[in-house]
Formats: sequence, structure tokens, C-alpha cells
Amino acid sequence: MKEFLSPEAAKLSPYTPGEQPLDKKYVKLNTNESPFPPSPKVLDALSREESEKLNLYPDPACRVLTDAIAKRHGVKPENVIAGNGSDEILAFAFRAFCGSGIGAAYADITYSFYKAQTALFGLDATVIPLRDDFSLCVDDYLNFPGTVFIANPNAPTGMEISVKDISRLAKSNPERVVVIDEAYVDFGGETCVPLTARYDNLLVVQTFSKSRSLAGGRVGFAIGAAGLIAALNRVKYSFNPYNVNRLSLVAGAAAMEDEAYFQACCEAIQANRAWTADALKKIGFTVLPSKANFVFAKSDRLSGEEAYRGLKERGVLVRWFDAPRLKDYLRISIGSRDQMQVLIDRLKEMSEGT
Amino acid sequence: MKEFLSPEAAKLSPYTPGEQPLDKKYVKLNTNESPFPPSPKVLDALSREESEKLNLYPDPACRVLTDAIAKRHGVKPENVIAGNGSDEILAFAFRAFCGSGIGAAYADITYSFYKAQTALFGLDATVIPLRDDFSLCVDDYLNFPGTVFIANPNAPTGMEISVKDISRLAKSNPERVVVIDEAYVDFGGETCVPLTARYDNLLVVQTFSKSRSLAGGRVGFAIGAAGLIAALNRVKYSFNPYNVNRLSLVAGAAAMEDEAYFQACCEAIQANRAWTADALKKIGFTVLPSKANFVFAKSDRLSGEEAYRGLKERGVLVRWFDAPRLKDYLRISIGSRDQMQVLIDRLKEMSEGT
Repeated sequence: MKEFLSPEAAKLSPYTPGEQPLDKKYVKLNTNESPFPPSPKVLDALSREESEKLNLYPDPACRVLTDAIAKRHGVKPENVIAGNGSDEILAFAFRAFCGSGIGAAYADITYSFYKAQTALFGLDATVIPLRDDFSLCVDDYLNFPGTVFIANPNAPTGMEISVKDISRLAKSNPERVVVIDEAYVDFGGETCVPLTARYDNLLVVQTFSKSRSLAGGRVGFAIGAAGLIAALNRVKYSFNPYNVNRLSLVAGAAAMEDEAYFQACCEAIQANRAWTADALKKIGFTVLPSKANFVFAKSDRLSGEEAYRGLKERGVLVRWFDAPRLKDYLRISIGSRDQMQVLIDRLKEMSEGT
Repeated sequence: MKEFLSPEAAKLSPYTPGEQPLDKKYVKLNTNESPFPPSPKVLDALSREESEKLNLYPDPACRVLTDAIAKRHGVKPENVIAGNGSDEILAFAFRAFCGSGIGAAYADITYSFYKAQTALFGLDATVIPLRDDFSLCVDDYLNFPGTVFIANPNAPTGMEISVKDISRLAKSNPERVVVIDEAYVDFGGETCVPLTARYDNLLVVQTFSKSRSLAGGRVGFAIGAAGLIAALNRVKYSFNPYNVNRLSLVAGAAAMEDEAYFQACCEAIQANRAWTADALKKIGFTVLPSKANFVFAKSDRLSGEEAYRGLKERGVLVRWFDAPRLKDYLRISIGSRDQMQVLIDRLKEMSEGT
């Protein structure tokens, strides 16, 4: 099977999505989705009338969506770009802000997509290890001259970096772009969006996939100074001008406008996270302090792989990473209270050898 | 406004989408959309029940959609990849099959996105002029050692290259990938899909944006040997693994399955195209022979720019390209019969100076 790969394509490092087995119905706690359906206002917005207009291209500028995002976050529409999920926005950022003489720095333990996208554009990568306790120390990035990518809260640890530290990083070198990936910020973290008004070099990326129950709709966005957004648009219009489809535009706008539903979902996840962390600790797990919609935890009895496989056999999917610093741990998405009860019950069975 | 552009991003050549003015309602014949809504089966598939599942990621492999495409085109699912519009698929092809030592060749007059995507990946471009009569002669590409991109029918001319010629091109150098962009093939052109079974180096790209009334849903695909599809998937999983959203997956599958609706739409466009070409000729236009859902035509009285501006003032949008070989022409999308009547009436008014 000849693939005709270019030298650059041969060097790619494709991302492996969380498994989506179709053999049976699982309690799915492996891809950090929301356990809640989208807001009823989203369902109403996705009307037959909207579908009837699908023969027409979407607005390439995504105005209905960027206006809603801008309003919610207290910025101007020129400070917002929307994408086909935040992965696409991140790819735009790698192309816009990295290249010859401008490498990318990111942590050894973080969203593994940064590595894939660095390879996609053939960029120089500087991988900076987290500290032994999995904390990210911005001092380790202060002298890096290229573009910095930080997930905050970090994945798969769930741990937070303080806004004060990120402010210090952005300020330390105004010639260098700092990209903060806030995919998981809505579950108790503090956003850096207000800092974008102060620092022209700070880009904040967010997604509708977690806190706004639209992983299936593929909507992400970035907020930053108008110059950064213009740079991202240069890439977008070189890649895929009509990048967000019509239905996702209206769904995203409706989701952004339903603040009450959003708050209720985020609060429920935080309550379930606290309950799950306690329950895990009671059965011998060490749980890292999480501000995300998942916890990263290791058992004092089972190896990471044993726990992952045992849960899968018992109908519960979690994510396990076969990597040196991660392999003792499980990344467990926070679902509904019922789902978390099933997880704990199955882990108890396994610990007790039943 | 500091953009922090990398050297590579500074060299980009972003695409300009057809204008989408919001000041008033136009007869919109400038972006080659279908004038018909999606199939009723598509509307039924986009149910509230599907929307309720938007909290879950889509299947990254897009199986429901690639299965429907494979069935319709008589290939296996491993011969199909789906994308967020065919623009995304084309970008994957530029990254997969071009790079150091492997440049891209395309015509001087063709879909202008090839130029934008070549710049996106910093590729060497070889631009091969069409002949004086706007025909593309494959002999001009036989000795090119890199990857060839050909739109068939070509845009914005609408002119067809024969399947026999493309077969000759693919056969002439089995080490070189040939990408045939069949965005407009369903309006009387002949597809090269059957050739993909014979040539491992031939990739055919198609879209749901024109003949399947889903421009707003952003669905495109490619068909080729399993090796080519695997190469494209390498890029996809390095860029955006969940590239097609849930609703577009089910909409695309339903559209692909409704053969009768598809045929009826394509026949109506061809009938309207014949009517429009005749009517244009009667008022002094030269019309290139089109197999697409648009015609490329020039007036013997009005300059391209005059005709474009005059029509816009009168509420009809068409596309005009301010480029040396194109500026005398208008690219006019084929809409409904009523829309085409309005176009002809307005052009008549303008010719008569009323």
C-alpha cells in the first residue's frame, strides 16, 4: 500500500483520539465530554427552518457567533475568531505565530495535540518538563524566545496555573506570543481573557466541547488583541474560509447566550468532581487537585493499565496513557452522579477482587 | 496593530470568498451554491434527537458518512475520507503529497485556493497556463515530477477535461500523485472515480456544497486507493481528528442516499444552464462551454467590471475576477429559472441603457 507521503508528512505524529468502541454500550468517561445535552435554547435554534438554508454557505466571518462570544466576554468582535473546534484554532496559531526562527515551547505532559501540530508545520519544538509534582512553573518559560503554548488547567493533570503567573509570562517578553488553552477553565479555573486587553501578545483559546455541551458541534474560539486575530484569519482564509458550518454557528450563539444553563452545568460537574475525588480517595486513590471536568488519579493497589482494562471489561471507559510519567494514572472524565457511582462501584469490585 | 506573524504566515496568500453583503437582499449568483434546499430526507435526519446528542464527540472516522459515500460510488470505506468541506480535504492533500523536493503544479486559471494552500505549507508552485481558448492540455503536465492539482470541470471557466486525458496523465508517471477536484462534476461532467481502482496515484475530491445542497453543512470527501486515504488520515489526525461535526455526518449520509432528489436537482441546473447560455448569447454574450453549475461569459458591450457593478446595483450578485485573462468575464452561478430570468432582465436593461 503505497502512501506517496511527502518527507514532511512522513514525519507527522498523528493524535490518537479516545477510543469510541461500538461493540457495546459503555459508561463513557474517556473523552471529557459533558454528560448533559445542549441547552434547550440550542435545540430550539437548530430548527428545520435553519436546516432548509443549508444550501447556502455559512457567513465566513461567523458574525452571529463571534458577536455572542464578544458580548459574553466583554470584548469586541474584532478580538474573536471562531473555529471548527479549538483544535483548528490551535493549528491556526501554530502556523501564524511559529516558523523559521520561531519555535514552539510546551510542557512534556500536556495536551498531546501540540506535538502533532508542531510536526504538521515542521516546527522546532522545545519540550519543558513539568516539575516532579506535575506543576507547571512559568519561570521555566521566561527565557524561551519563541511561542509558548500552555493548557490551563493543564491536561491530563487538571492542575491550574495562576493568572498572576501567566500575566508575568506575557509581560516578560512582549515580542513573544503566549497561547493559553483554556479548554477546561469553566470548571472552577480563572480565565485569562481579561488579560488580553493588557497584553497584545496573549491569546486565549476556549472551546464549546466541554462546558457548553457541544463537542459534537465542533465549535472553538480564541480571544486576543486585534492583531493576533488578524494573523489567525490570514491562516484561516488560506486553509478553509468557511470553517464553521451554519448549524454550529446558530448552536454556538444560542449556547453562549444561555448563561443560566451554562452555570448550572458547570456547578453540577464541580459538585460531582468533589464527590468523585472523595470517593476515590476512600478506596486508596491519590487524586491530583483538579480544576477541570476530569480527575487524574492513581490507585495504591492497581496499576494504571490494570485499572483501565478492568474498568473496560466492566463497561466503564476511562483514558490511560502508556507514557513514563503517566502510566500509573487514569484520567477520568466527570460525568453525571449516576455515572460516577458506577465507576466507584466497579473500582471497589476490582479492589476487592470480585 | 502588531500581528506577530511568522515569516511563513507573512507570505500567505489568503483566499477572498465571494462577497456576502448584508445591506439588502440580492439574487445571489456569486458563490455557486445550489438554489434548492437540501433533500427532505436531510431535513428529517437533522432531528431534535440528533441535536440532543451534540454533547458527545462525533465519530472521528465519520463512518456513517464514508459508508454512504462508498456505497454510492461503488468503492470500499477504506477508499474514502470525509472533511469539513472539500477545501479541508485539499489542504490535507497539499500537506500529505507535497513538501521538500515535491512541488505542486496547477493551472494559471483555476480554483484560486490551490495558490493559498501552496503558500500555507510553503510549497514550490509551478503554474501552468491554460491554452488561449482556456482549455487545459494534460500534455503540459506530463513531465512535471511533483503533485498535480486539476479542477475538472475547471473553475471559473466550467470547461471539462476528458477522463481519457486524465487517465493518460495518471498512467504517465505512477510515482506522482494526481489530484482531480471534481467539485462541479455532477452537472454533466464525467467523474474519474472509476479510474481510482486502476491508478494508485489518482485522488478524486468531491463536495456536497453544489449538487447536494449542503454548502452550509461543510461536507467534502476524497476517493482513492487505500494508501492515499491513509496518507490523508495522517494529516487529518495531526490537524483536527474530529473534523466533521455530528449533524453534518447525518446530513451528508442522508443526502448521499437520496439519489432521486440529487438527480432531479442536477437535471434542473443543467436545464437552467442551457436556457441561461442561450439567453446570454442572444444579448451579445460569449459563453464558454460549461459542465458546471455556473457559466463564464463576456459581453460584447459591457466590460466585466461594468457588468458586475451594474448587476450589483440592480440587486444581482455575480462574481468578477480582476485578473488579466479573466477581467472581461463574469462567473454567473446557475440558480433557479426565476433567478436566471431576473439576471437576463437586468442585463437587458443595462445593455439598453435604461
